[in-house]
Amino acid sequence: METPEVITQFAKMLQNLDRWLEAGTAFAEKKKFEPDVLAQSRLAPDQYELIRQVQSACDAAKYAAAYLSGQQAPSHPDTEKSVGDLRARIRTCVQYLESVKPSQYAGAAERRVAPPWLQGKWFRGADYLAQVAVPNFYFHVTTAYAILRHNGVDLGKMDYIGSMPVQDG
Amino acid sequence: METPEVITQFAKMLQNLDRWLEAGTAFAEKKKFEPDVLAQSRLAPDQYELIRQVQSACDAAKYAAAYLSGQQAPSHPDTEKSVGDLRARIRTCVQYLESVKPSQYAGAAERRVAPPWLQGKWFRGADYLAQVAVPNFYFHVTTAYAILRHNGVDLGKMDYIGSMPVQDG
Repeated sequence: METPEVITQFAKMLQNLDRWLEAGTAFAEKKKFEPDVLAQSRLAPDQYELIRQVQSACDAAKYAAAYLSGQQAPSHPDTEKSVGDLRARIRTCVQYLESVKPSQYAGAAERRVAPPWLQGKWFRGADYLAQVAVPNFYFHVTTAYAILRHNGVDLGKMDYIGSMPVQDG
Repeated sequence: METPEVITQFAKMLQNLDRWLEAGTAFAEKKKFEPDVLAQSRLAPDQYELIRQVQSACDAAKYAAAYLSGQQAPSHPDTEKSVGDLRARIRTCVQYLESVKPSQYAGAAERRVAPPWLQGKWFRGADYLAQVAVPNFYFHVTTAYAILRHNGVDLGKMDYIGSMPVQDG
């Protein structure tokens, strides 16, 4: 998996996540509760609620794209309050991911990735992508999915995976 | 991310999962309930329980290693009943992943991956890895983690990520 392919896959999963949020809104309307109840839901009292899971998924993807292409990440403040706000945050993030050209990831595997929270230490680009960015990204999208499923939203595994890259013949 | 690196990361995550199961067993002993209650727990009535989440995570990793190295996957029947059985299944899977040499993944991106459930259709190896195997693998490990967290097992994000590939200097 080349780096641009991983980032494209992040964008695909974020668009899947957007559809799960749309299904959550439809479920709330059908059951006549406020969709923002879902935005505040969580699986354990000391785990992030849906809002922060979506923000964190977006950030995992955004920082991977920025660090591995040698750019400053754009600022996306965590101001979302509603499911509608979360869907807008996803669109903003996907637009950023799509703005980075594949050629900008040249040499990504060997880049020094030094997030501020490492306080001067760093990751080799390839280690950061495989062992930090990818597991972290999928953690947050899957937990968002699990919060919706746990609350009764009618989703299945194929909604999680999205379109399948099947070849014929 | 080269294919062998992705498979090595799957093995690392399965070893993390083994530690979450160990923490689940310790939690059950402390709270004086049967650890196998956790094995039967799930987040939604129509979602897999912990046993099948762990089996599915192992299979996602095993089939990725087998298909992308051009081997027949070993058979690991889904006979696990207890948390102890699940931990043994993980060990068996990790041993298999470690038995495949990096050189056996040569040309993996362009291999035709044709799982029986595609009924004659196929995936390009790189598409299968990025869009099917990786999201599917992380779906099942994260859902297993979420089941344990939801039931009160004392785990945090660093238990999920495991060791960090930090460089110094």
